[in-house]
Amino acid sequence: MTAFDDLMAFQRDTQALAEIAGRLGWDQETVMPEGAAPQRAEEMAAIENVLHARRIDPRISEWLEAVEASKLTPADAAQIREIRRAQTRALKVPVDLSMAIARATSAAQRKWADARAKDDFTAFCPVLEEIVALRREEAAALANGGDLYDALLDDYEPGASGQDIQTMFDAMRSRLVKLRDAALGSAHQPEKVIGTYPAKKQMKLSAKLARTFGYDLTHGRIDKAVHPFSSGSGLDVRITTRTSDTDPFNCFYSTIHEVGHACYEQNVDRAYLLTPIGRGASMGVHESQSRIYENQLGRSRAFSAWLFDRMQRRFGHAPASDADAFYGTVNRLEKGYIRTESDEVQYNLHVMLRFDLERRLIAGQLDVADLEEAWNARFVTDFGYEVDRAANGVLQDVHWAVGLFGYFPTYSLGNVYAGCLHEALQHDRPDLDVQLAQGNATYATDWLRDKVQRHGALCAPQAVIEGATGKPVSVEPLLAYLEAKFGEIYRL
Amino acid sequence: MTAFDDLMAFQRDTQALAEIAGRLGWDQETVMPEGAAPQRAEEMAAIENVLHARRIDPRISEWLEAVEASKLTPADAAQIREIRRAQTRALKVPVDLSMAIARATSAAQRKWADARAKDDFTAFCPVLEEIVALRREEAAALANGGDLYDALLDDYEPGASGQDIQTMFDAMRSRLVKLRDAALGSAHQPEKVIGTYPAKKQMKLSAKLARTFGYDLTHGRIDKAVHPFSSGSGLDVRITTRTSDTDPFNCFYSTIHEVGHACYEQNVDRAYLLTPIGRGASMGVHESQSRIYENQLGRSRAFSAWLFDRMQRRFGHAPASDADAFYGTVNRLEKGYIRTESDEVQYNLHVMLRFDLERRLIAGQLDVADLEEAWNARFVTDFGYEVDRAANGVLQDVHWAVGLFGYFPTYSLGNVYAGCLHEALQHDRPDLDVQLAQGNATYATDWLRDKVQRHGALCAPQAVIEGATGKPVSVEPLLAYLEAKFGEIYRL
Repeated sequence: MTAFDDLMAFQRDTQALAEIAGRLGWDQETVMPEGAAPQRAEEMAAIENVLHARRIDPRISEWLEAVEASKLTPADAAQIREIRRAQTRALKVPVDLSMAIARATSAAQRKWADARAKDDFTAFCPVLEEIVALRREEAAALANGGDLYDALLDDYEPGASGQDIQTMFDAMRSRLVKLRDAALGSAHQPEKVIGTYPAKKQMKLSAKLARTFGYDLTHGRIDKAVHPFSSGSGLDVRITTRTSDTDPFNCFYSTIHEVGHACYEQNVDRAYLLTPIGRGASMGVHESQSRIYENQLGRSRAFSAWLFDRMQRRFGHAPASDADAFYGTVNRLEKGYIRTESDEVQYNLHVMLRFDLERRLIAGQLDVADLEEAWNARFVTDFGYEVDRAANGVLQDVHWAVGLFGYFPTYSLGNVYAGCLHEALQHDRPDLDVQLAQGNATYATDWLRDKVQRHGALCAPQAVIEGATGKPVSVEPLLAYLEAKFGEIYRL
Repeated sequence: MTAFDDLMAFQRDTQALAEIAGRLGWDQETVMPEGAAPQRAEEMAAIENVLHARRIDPRISEWLEAVEASKLTPADAAQIREIRRAQTRALKVPVDLSMAIARATSAAQRKWADARAKDDFTAFCPVLEEIVALRREEAAALANGGDLYDALLDDYEPGASGQDIQTMFDAMRSRLVKLRDAALGSAHQPEKVIGTYPAKKQMKLSAKLARTFGYDLTHGRIDKAVHPFSSGSGLDVRITTRTSDTDPFNCFYSTIHEVGHACYEQNVDRAYLLTPIGRGASMGVHESQSRIYENQLGRSRAFSAWLFDRMQRRFGHAPASDADAFYGTVNRLEKGYIRTESDEVQYNLHVMLRFDLERRLIAGQLDVADLEEAWNARFVTDFGYEVDRAANGVLQDVHWAVGLFGYFPTYSLGNVYAGCLHEALQHDRPDLDVQLAQGNATYATDWLRDKVQRHGALCAPQAVIEGATGKPVSVEPLLAYLEAKFGEIYRL
């Protein structure tokens, strides 16, 4: 056994334990008895302690020093890069601070839910103040004198910077606003969905949709959860969705979105199973998979025609007057407050608002006490109408309550990456629409598996996308796609 | 923080991690995608390694030395007793041997299933030889020159010895054989169950049965599994059952049996949550709970009358000609090969056979190569007919394949304990039958919670039973109960 082998054996156990922690999270959101929550909190803390101890285990440094870098394959070098990265981050943050963050964010989740239920940001303000203070302290420990926000962002999107994100958003904002205003102001408005849709039949069609996109149910399963998510890696990747009798798209497109995440994890090269590069390359690349499945593929004219037909057969009535109208129905823009309910055009505007606010919070330029006012003012500017209550405004997302600062922009990065990948996919597979119209979405997964998914975290996020497309990452494909698609649907 | 506090904090994390390992086992048997098995094996190995390292952590000895025994409450002294016990056992067995046993038994489970499917003991023989050899080696390490079998038995039933079990069985065998022969030879035979029973309705009635016995579904849940089991402790105790359209009792009495185990775990004093005494006192005491629920309560004339009525209402037809006949139906004796399908009278005869064989295997008096022949010969002697195939004989139970030697007698101990508890319960609660006839089985749970369940592992197994009954443990109550009950049903 070389030092590299020892190190990898150690990492493999660590990854296996991390999978277990992830499985507990799945359990908690799907099948756990409600009264088990306090015990589960102790179980989660216990395994997180084990994982933390392993991340800062002094043997890692010894092994890393003994590894002969010149003899490593590219994949092995990538493993070392990821191990070093995780260890560096873990060592920089004092244990007491890590534990204080874990405690505070764990308690904050319930307090956030309570505050949201009561529309009372003031009650939540001191909780969030503590979390921002702790995360700023952590960022300072990580940043080595550099930018605090970048230090946090780097955890979700290695190599990205707040400045890059700012530049990306600057290139998007005015075109998205223009498109949104034109669509909402158009005389032609798509139909709303017709009829009701029993939950059980929605779940059955969800399973069909998942298989249609290539999700492997021998290594996964579909359950219901309040907030849909994908969980796990390798041989056990589970997804959740939700149902509403009057809004079947909530179920179907949540399913397709999570299938994008899940296919990514299922399709990583099995040689990387339970290793540091055996998962997605970053949150942004992950989101590129979920978004291209959900939107560029799932909400395409071709695939929506297939879905129209399936829904008609399964539910015994047409969900719109015809397949053409249905394409508009699944792509309808509506005014609204909620990010997760918004369409392809407005989604990134929601993210920009959060990005600007959280960047100022972490920079110390905005106090938590002023956050609600700042949110509401910004919302009027960006969307043209007033936030009616905190649950529809500053309290709508759980992210900040659980300490996720620097996470929001990865959603938009994912959209931009999805735009680049979709352009390349269409170029490489000119018959894509023919296949999608027949419900053969696995055809797209095959291309994505080869170009993106199988590589896991072998390369840095941007390199993954550029390797797949042969071009630099740019906002242009996404914007051009949106303008063409919604220009046609809204007859602009 | 005193040494005791430090030690208990450490133990609490260990127990939380052990709960997680148990939860993975539940997941594997109920919801895990089948293709996940190889990854799950690595996850289980990783968490078992963590648990093993904690059991032999050198700090435990330091803390134990520093604890001032004179200042401990009885509960705290019991914690120390259990910690010392677990540590002593863990330290006596070399790590390499532990790992070899884990590897061998993990691989053997599938090989056993394959061999059983093919009725081929010869194919399984070398696998079992290795496991017996490894467990004998472990027993020698544990026994300090004492009896090998006792050293293994002690892990499941602290303080029990092979000689005690032998004495117990000697007192039972002839009376059980006589009762069995009389019942099977009686001119009066109870009716078989009438009709078919849709699985979904069985599961609904199972949930009702579980609540009827006091199982708390806010801290538990019921799923289906191939082999019913109970899993977890404290605030999250889950059970499984199974269904067969033509054999509803398989489902109902499996449910009631597992509810017995689960109520025990749920009802341990919450002050002991995630501590060494926060679980059942032993396998035998655990089985006493499952068996008293299933048999003395669940198969009583009073409760079966209530069940008859419920089945009639739920399934739209009577499961027997009347409630009186139904009491015979749920207590029918049949010839058969399978321990898990056998009735109250014959069950212990199945256990005796296994006990004698495994005791000789561990003593080195019987070779694995001769085991099938010995099983078959013994079966004819005990049951009067020949085993037709290995799956109905030596390959029917998974226990030996997974290294469980010394486990089988705890089933019979459980039956004997249940007999003692039932006698005391009837004495303390003269209106028990009135309550059971109204479906109020929680009435019995209330007594068992107070006398047995809430104490967890505060006392040694036998002391638990004697504390509850005020009498020494004896086979007499069980035998008297069986003779009276089956004498009446079979009109002997």
